[in-house]
Amino acid sequence: MNILYDDVADAVKWISSFGGLEQGGSTRLLYTTEWLAAQNALKEKLTQIGMDTYFDDVGNLYGRFEGSKYKEQVIMSGSHVDTVVNGGKLDGQLGIIAAMLAMKYLKENYGQPLRSLELISMAEEEGSRFPYVFWGSKNVFAIANNDDVATIQDNNGIKFVDAMSSCGFKFNSQKARTDIKAFLELHIEQGGVLEREQKSIGVVTSIVGQRRYNVRLVGEANHAGTTPMSYRKDAIYTFSRICHESINKAIKIGDPLVLTFGHVDPKPNVVNVVPGEVMFTIDCRHTDQAELKKFTEELEADMLGIAKQLGLEIEINRWMDELPIPMDDQLIKMLKDICQQENLSYRVMHSGAGHDSQIFAPRVPTAMLFVPSIKGISHNPAEDTKTEDLVEGIKALTYALYQLAYQE
Amino acid sequence: MNILYDDVADAVKWISSFGGLEQGGSTRLLYTTEWLAAQNALKEKLTQIGMDTYFDDVGNLYGRFEGSKYKEQVIMSGSHVDTVVNGGKLDGQLGIIAAMLAMKYLKENYGQPLRSLELISMAEEEGSRFPYVFWGSKNVFAIANNDDVATIQDNNGIKFVDAMSSCGFKFNSQKARTDIKAFLELHIEQGGVLEREQKSIGVVTSIVGQRRYNVRLVGEANHAGTTPMSYRKDAIYTFSRICHESINKAIKIGDPLVLTFGHVDPKPNVVNVVPGEVMFTIDCRHTDQAELKKFTEELEADMLGIAKQLGLEIEINRWMDELPIPMDDQLIKMLKDICQQENLSYRVMHSGAGHDSQIFAPRVPTAMLFVPSIKGISHNPAEDTKTEDLVEGIKALTYALYQLAYQE
Repeated sequence: MNILYDDVADAVKWISSFGGLEQGGSTRLLYTTEWLAAQNALKEKLTQIGMDTYFDDVGNLYGRFEGSKYKEQVIMSGSHVDTVVNGGKLDGQLGIIAAMLAMKYLKENYGQPLRSLELISMAEEEGSRFPYVFWGSKNVFAIANNDDVATIQDNNGIKFVDAMSSCGFKFNSQKARTDIKAFLELHIEQGGVLEREQKSIGVVTSIVGQRRYNVRLVGEANHAGTTPMSYRKDAIYTFSRICHESINKAIKIGDPLVLTFGHVDPKPNVVNVVPGEVMFTIDCRHTDQAELKKFTEELEADMLGIAKQLGLEIEINRWMDELPIPMDDQLIKMLKDICQQENLSYRVMHSGAGHDSQIFAPRVPTAMLFVPSIKGISHNPAEDTKTEDLVEGIKALTYALYQLAYQE
Repeated sequence: MNILYDDVADAVKWISSFGGLEQGGSTRLLYTTEWLAAQNALKEKLTQIGMDTYFDDVGNLYGRFEGSKYKEQVIMSGSHVDTVVNGGKLDGQLGIIAAMLAMKYLKENYGQPLRSLELISMAEEEGSRFPYVFWGSKNVFAIANNDDVATIQDNNGIKFVDAMSSCGFKFNSQKARTDIKAFLELHIEQGGVLEREQKSIGVVTSIVGQRRYNVRLVGEANHAGTTPMSYRKDAIYTFSRICHESINKAIKIGDPLVLTFGHVDPKPNVVNVVPGEVMFTIDCRHTDQAELKKFTEELEADMLGIAKQLGLEIEINRWMDELPIPMDDQLIKMLKDICQQENLSYRVMHSGAGHDSQIFAPRVPTAMLFVPSIKGISHNPAEDTKTEDLVEGIKALTYALYQLAYQE
């Protein structure tokens, strides 16, 4: 298969120039001028390769090669065009570039497909400008609630609805897509598993469920010199016991469970005062909802018990509870078979991060392909993948789209 | 003894009005207009009660009742006049007010002392404006190094030397005082021991030694979802193990050892990233230098071992190592005897905080009296002590000064 190294490298370079940063990577937030420039340039590029292109109401961009025999059956691929602030050159947009190169290759080599091939460049996934995520994919299925974004603003006080309007888009009035027969998303892993195992491709079996918490411990701020150990209600000591014991448990259980205490904010946070208060976060993920529930419920009980024993008040606020999302079994099998037949270096794995595919998967047959992230870095200008791995990933995607769109 | 409740309450109210805050308490930093106003007002007040008053080169204020028989033997009492930012109404200045009321009482009731009685209102102890502590007491003994403050500045870029000069003071050229026969300092406890034990007076046996550290752990920041537990170099987990295990040890050892992890600063400190780095502080205190050394050396070794085991880099920077300072045995015995004879409610205790007395004690016989801190609060506008406890403390000080200055 003739997916060219230089074509891939050039396409990544081209797309990341919209909102491009000096230090590499991009900042391309929803409904900004950089975002609109990228969508318009993609539209032009897709038109050039012969696709019919159109935007939906909210700014999802589509490029379509209509099927000759089953045009009402759509084989779709793509990802989101927005980035985080100081994001990389691959997260999201790689899935768009990959679909473009794969579909272009198929059209040039095999002509019109039997089923319709559609590329999607989704408006938004990251939630980096406005406090709302999956705006793009949710609008594909008409499950985004206009009311949820009617009053939200960005950090500069600009309303979501005004930003959308300034780009020429408006609230979704379209109907849910019911013609999608399969959705494939190629994405960077954003972890270090493929690199460590020297694999080029990850075939994703499921996206983890996640629960997130804010926890506040309230003890007593005291003088670090004049307060005997036995009088203390030390919030950082209490936090450290919770963190130490809970992570020890998580390590013992191991894959696919992960547990992170990412944010810790003690008060007053000075060298010579016993911390009287601490706010910390918990992020816990697992591919199995029952296991996730069991572990986090034990964790909640442990925290309550430790706080009570040490005489501190505790508030536990679970503000995220996302279910694990399995990918489609048949598509997983197809991707594995392709990797084996074409001698591509791959492993089966889950996704520890959320993706647009988790919105698609409950509604249409969906699968994901990962390519390695160098040092596991993402959401950062240093985010990178070897071009030879990108080529391998796009090859797998191309074979899969061929089977889905060109074969009876 | 006729130490009047109202006189004490009025004097505290009066002194705390210089740099007084709306919410109570004071901010009176070294060489500010508030500071100068307080020293000048004190000078006037001391003159009014018949003292000879004078400033030394750097702004320590003295008030003196010359002795009739042993005028070259000085019995000194006082404390520091500066406060922290948003400080209380007692820390430091209570010791000045107490000495003033005690000496005034003695002069009025017993006339001229045999030995000279001297009050000292020391320029500075807190280090709250400039990065230098004990400027006042160190200048009494000519051990402050002018070079150390020659270039330091406050947060507004004002040089120490210029601030000093603006108040009419200059670098120390005086000689160390060699005429001080005894120094007594009355101070608030700044802890909760006296209040819990319902005692009015603490007779201080020693001031703790303290070691302080900055510790930096460097692991790897990773995606909280895509990084298996076994791949992580989690700085907050490593910190939490160190903090949990070390404080457990300190609790087991107990008084007078105290151990505090007061400041914790993880990076990047967001919910969905495994913390790659953390800077934290350790404050460890004990009245016995050998015990302090033993505990902290074990702690250092434990931290190195834990970091090595978990694959993180660690930098341990011990930036403070102050020796414990014992108070004078004879003065301790005298204070205990007074409390017993006069039926004052007291206990013997150590000081977990640093005080001017630690500069005096290695050079002249020195002792301290504590009065309770309500809820242990200090360095805060809520800092307070019941006036009846203040009266008891000042009574003890007065009896002690009488014995030292009026008896053969």
